[in-house]
Amino acid sequence: MEIIKSIHDMQSKMMQWKQSGKSIGFVPTMGYLHEGHQQLMKKARQENDIVVTSIFVNPLQFGPDEDYERYPRDEVHDTDIAKKEQVDILFYPHVNEMYPKDQTIRMTVHQRVDVLCGKSRPGHFDGVVTILAKLFNIVYPDYVYLGLKDAQQVAVVDALIQDYNFPIKLRPIATVREQDGLAKSSRNVNLSDQERIEAPYIYQALLHGQKLMQAGEQDAEVIIKEVSHFIHTHTHGKIDYVDLLSYPELERVNHINEQVILAVAVYFKHARLIDNVVLDQQGSFATAIV
Amino acid sequence: MEIIKSIHDMQSKMMQWKQSGKSIGFVPTMGYLHEGHQQLMKKARQENDIVVTSIFVNPLQFGPDEDYERYPRDEVHDTDIAKKEQVDILFYPHVNEMYPKDQTIRMTVHQRVDVLCGKSRPGHFDGVVTILAKLFNIVYPDYVYLGLKDAQQVAVVDALIQDYNFPIKLRPIATVREQDGLAKSSRNVNLSDQERIEAPYIYQALLHGQKLMQAGEQDAEVIIKEVSHFIHTHTHGKIDYVDLLSYPELERVNHINEQVILAVAVYFKHARLIDNVVLDQQGSFATAIV
Repeated sequence: MEIIKSIHDMQSKMMQWKQSGKSIGFVPTMGYLHEGHQQLMKKARQENDIVVTSIFVNPLQFGPDEDYERYPRDEVHDTDIAKKEQVDILFYPHVNEMYPKDQTIRMTVHQRVDVLCGKSRPGHFDGVVTILAKLFNIVYPDYVYLGLKDAQQVAVVDALIQDYNFPIKLRPIATVREQDGLAKSSRNVNLSDQERIEAPYIYQALLHGQKLMQAGEQDAEVIIKEVSHFIHTHTHGKIDYVDLLSYPELERVNHINEQVILAVAVYFKHARLIDNVVLDQQGSFATAIV
Repeated sequence: MEIIKSIHDMQSKMMQWKQSGKSIGFVPTMGYLHEGHQQLMKKARQENDIVVTSIFVNPLQFGPDEDYERYPRDEVHDTDIAKKEQVDILFYPHVNEMYPKDQTIRMTVHQRVDVLCGKSRPGHFDGVVTILAKLFNIVYPDYVYLGLKDAQQVAVVDALIQDYNFPIKLRPIATVREQDGLAKSSRNVNLSDQERIEAPYIYQALLHGQKLMQAGEQDAEVIIKEVSHFIHTHTHGKIDYVDLLSYPELERVNHINEQVILAVAVYFKHARLIDNVVLDQQGSFATAIV
């Protein structure tokens, strides 16, 4: 595995691969790699000649109250993980390399952002699309791998690729789960023993909503209420949101007649957990996603 | 010459050239091609294996008071010109192909725009960078050719390429002039006979400013006043602006100690003429530009 820190070196390297007709799979990350990232790398490895991972903690996507400085970093661990997953090139730029000065030209996201987790993180996705537009122009990927755990991010990156005609295919990868269905997350270690027993009911609640849709329920409000009730009944968590929106547009739907996302965020004492399912009109798990 | 109207066809075509290692020169235009465009095409033809021209009247760069619908179009003439200049591919998309829906993600330009012609065209350059970002992702150019007549556009596109790491080199091409120095423009035909005699003094005024710099004058205000006075003395035109700014940053300079642009816009009865020179600190014509 080669570690590259300069944009210039990266671009000349990648252009060589591109010109030799190799397919390039790209896994952009902020480091502190875990099993979710590894899943993306494995998928990229299966589907491409060349796998590139980037590690860059992007200051632009942190809000003023979010602690960019304290975001965890572990270069040795991350390098080991990337090697283990047979990544070919690890792009690991310094912040001054990516942002030598303030951007003269800014990107801002005007749809798909004022809902779900984006609602409480104004400007977050502006930072996400800015860094990804830059990385796409440095890595020249054919395929980009993102986890569906953050389905809103997938929806926004879908818009970036469409709006700016990037010659890239987005590959959203299914959320990795524990045996009992709990979505894997580095935050799960912050759950108490009792909370860890209750947490799988979040996914059960989503599946309950799915069953309602499969049984013919088409009223979004009814499903949202039922899912919320299910979580209240089976956990001591405090619901941040339960929502059902069109996907990937993330617009409000009343009568369900298109692909939707059913998404939840629940506060436990020391962990906020999120989860979602993307479903077609009949309530089956969506296969195409974007 | 091949005429392509679909983004998909364009991308597959261009990726083939790219993979075969051909260099790609790109001349983006809004059509109604004239000698200025031809100069860009000639330069692109000299320097590249493949020359691509696009013709697209971009609604996003027209203000509400600017007449997008009435912008002149002439497909037959333009196709002839492009053929004559040995363009390989003419990309000629319909507006619905480039903007199938409103952009979810917008680009806005925050520096280099509130001066010169940009001052009176708010949002204009937002539209310019949006369409160019899209076109860059469709054409994959190695070199992009723009006329220095619109030096502010060159400065903004320079920022686009820098900020978003497009693997593209910008080639600003010197303004084409008549024998008497008047910058060529399709607007020159709107000058009266007397105005046509006076108009070359605009360029003479810029050269007068240059001479002052070469003689050691470093105070921007003095040069601006002298150039304005020169235009007043030799023409009946009404000055819109005379300005001297750092280039390509387009920031105000008091004491000249870097590359600058000396730029003017003058109203005649039925034509607004613009012109500029980019000069190094000593007043010599700049060679590197960006």
